[in-house]
Amino acid sequence: MNVAILGFGVVGSGVAEVIKNNCKSIEENNNVSLKVTRILDIRDFPDSEYKDILTKNFEDIVSDDSIDIVVETMGGVSPAFNFVSECLKKGKHVVSSNKELVATKGYELLTLARENNVNFLFEASVGGGIPIIRPISRCLAGNNISEVAGILNGTSNFILTKMIVDGMSFEAALKLAQDKGYAEKDPTADVEGLDAMRKICILASLCFGSQVYPDGVYSEGISKITLEDVAFAASYDSVIKLIARAKKLPCGKALVMVSPCLVKNSSMLSGVNGVFNACLVRGDMVGDVLMYGQGAGSLATASAVVGDVIDCAANAENRKFFGWGDKKDDYLADYLDCETALYVRAAADSAEKVKAQLLNIFGSVQYLTRENQGENEIAFVTPSGKEGDLRASLEKADINVLSVIRVSDY
Amino acid sequence: MNVAILGFGVVGSGVAEVIKNNCKSIEENNNVSLKVTRILDIRDFPDSEYKDILTKNFEDIVSDDSIDIVVETMGGVSPAFNFVSECLKKGKHVVSSNKELVATKGYELLTLARENNVNFLFEASVGGGIPIIRPISRCLAGNNISEVAGILNGTSNFILTKMIVDGMSFEAALKLAQDKGYAEKDPTADVEGLDAMRKICILASLCFGSQVYPDGVYSEGISKITLEDVAFAASYDSVIKLIARAKKLPCGKALVMVSPCLVKNSSMLSGVNGVFNACLVRGDMVGDVLMYGQGAGSLATASAVVGDVIDCAANAENRKFFGWGDKKDDYLADYLDCETALYVRAAADSAEKVKAQLLNIFGSVQYLTRENQGENEIAFVTPSGKEGDLRASLEKADINVLSVIRVSDY
Repeated sequence: MNVAILGFGVVGSGVAEVIKNNCKSIEENNNVSLKVTRILDIRDFPDSEYKDILTKNFEDIVSDDSIDIVVETMGGVSPAFNFVSECLKKGKHVVSSNKELVATKGYELLTLARENNVNFLFEASVGGGIPIIRPISRCLAGNNISEVAGILNGTSNFILTKMIVDGMSFEAALKLAQDKGYAEKDPTADVEGLDAMRKICILASLCFGSQVYPDGVYSEGISKITLEDVAFAASYDSVIKLIARAKKLPCGKALVMVSPCLVKNSSMLSGVNGVFNACLVRGDMVGDVLMYGQGAGSLATASAVVGDVIDCAANAENRKFFGWGDKKDDYLADYLDCETALYVRAAADSAEKVKAQLLNIFGSVQYLTRENQGENEIAFVTPSGKEGDLRASLEKADINVLSVIRVSDY
Repeated sequence: MNVAILGFGVVGSGVAEVIKNNCKSIEENNNVSLKVTRILDIRDFPDSEYKDILTKNFEDIVSDDSIDIVVETMGGVSPAFNFVSECLKKGKHVVSSNKELVATKGYELLTLARENNVNFLFEASVGGGIPIIRPISRCLAGNNISEVAGILNGTSNFILTKMIVDGMSFEAALKLAQDKGYAEKDPTADVEGLDAMRKICILASLCFGSQVYPDGVYSEGISKITLEDVAFAASYDSVIKLIARAKKLPCGKALVMVSPCLVKNSSMLSGVNGVFNACLVRGDMVGDVLMYGQGAGSLATASAVVGDVIDCAANAENRKFFGWGDKKDDYLADYLDCETALYVRAAADSAEKVKAQLLNIFGSVQYLTRENQGENEIAFVTPSGKEGDLRASLEKADINVLSVIRVSDY
């Protein structure tokens, strides 16, 4: 079957390479023959082995009836959304690795695919090469999924790992990530949680059945985490991880958010280091399931794209629709209304006086310690409570709050 | 669609419960309506809510044309093999959780399913509720898989965890596992590696494309592991885990075996504790992927069965064959010919004299220590080498070997 690729960047070129490298075993194992016949990119690649099939004109692809499957690896919503829509309308299956597109236009494109009797698949949009979307939608189909949580951004996880394991500062670890090519020159989308937020929107939509758009999803990054926080977390037998999570609440609403969390060392999520990603899914029948692997990288991500392409090709006549419904109004819960415990680091003029105050305010709190702890420095974990209430209570104490980090229960 | 269940034990009754509990959400999300209409068991269940549909007569199921999908949760090869064969021949899809059946009759049954244009699916046969089979066969289809390794037996992992974390002896931990219902009265199949061995045969068949039968697969259990070994492993920054693994060798043969291994604490497999299971898959494009969760238990395992049932029901008209080829002759490598490093615990009359000998024999070895180490007790890790050569070399030293455990490189 003929495949076209939109966007010849890191992932797109990886897709061409995976198909070239493994076409023989793909054919043997799946009885499908894949051939990349067109690649769209606005740039020139005069030395590429694909130069004869490269085009700058989208019409060469959408109007070519010999192309059955289109891979979209451009990123961004425009022009990807238009291109994907046009391909679906022309009866072509589309496979995308573009999390921004799926997070903001997923429902529209899934609907369009169904109307046109073709597949729109996007395993690679969350967790790079790690199987996540299909295991949730197929293997766990007998479950009601109540919660999904993950380490979904490899760049920020690399930075946190360097801070935890090697004692590097945030700034130094970010610089190293940039030097290694893990972080972009403008690292905002990674370190401020935007990338993870798009991915958790996709997972929330998939697990709970209605589109969750990025608008209104609370997202907090890791740029304010300090080595003091890392040290106090260690004394709580925990590590700090950037956790993206979605939880169905008893009231029917969904809590969807991204923020740093203290994760106990006994949790499988605590062992996810470096650029690796992991996704934990909580089903009512299966309990907790975790999927782990390389969340980014050219060939790893491309391998997930190619898995979807094979699925389209092997079942071209047997479309297997999956997807979710339209956005529900008033569906997202306010995180301030949700239960959590908080880690707090603060400066206090008189630790003794403040401890008496905190006892009054919270009942009991658990104090943490670190090496070289400053005389005026205190750190503690509050009992569980509504986050808004906990934050209001904190204001009553004579402390200068320096850090507040949620404590996860995974 | 009407579903029959063969065997109303732990998993079979769980399947009935999952379908009963979640039929509404299953219908909403997958557009399939499932109903259990017949259950086969030789026992009486006079108080069961299913007593009206229970039968002792297999003919009531195989000859009932209203039954589309048959779930086999009996365990064992006989009569399960005959029953499954008859159902496939009658054009019924079959979903099985029976690892012994798939490990010993997988190729025959997959062939029969294909000939009769129906599905034979068995996600639950490896790793209970954890998605493993479908992620490997579908999501990772763009990869050549070179290696798969897992903690696939929850009972032995529970026992090892109790030895490592709580310092219990093997005997005490086994007793606790039996009291908790994790281990059977005769625990041989779990603690001696037979159960894990059947599962790795299934994964090897799936990943490498030809049936690996249990005959001739080397399997070693955990009953000889001592707390001394656990302590020495800890000083090597490792834990002892029962690892089932299959590896494609450059010569074309496959190494398939089960044995205890020292696993570094930095490995994700080291954090798999208690009755949890995990499976690591190494693909040429994706790198390492790990799937983790509850490897046993009524509802968890049943949830994987029901995922397969939904797949059959949602795609009843669109059979998606997967499977593997027939056994290859001379395919399994002898583990003694394969590379590994070995952990050795031994008694020696003169530690000094033996250290000089070992230096001569192995070049260098890494000595391990533990608290309360006996005066005549030594423990070390050899360099990597062919296992047969390493074992032959060990015989040249004046030591009384007490324990030999492979060192894993996962």
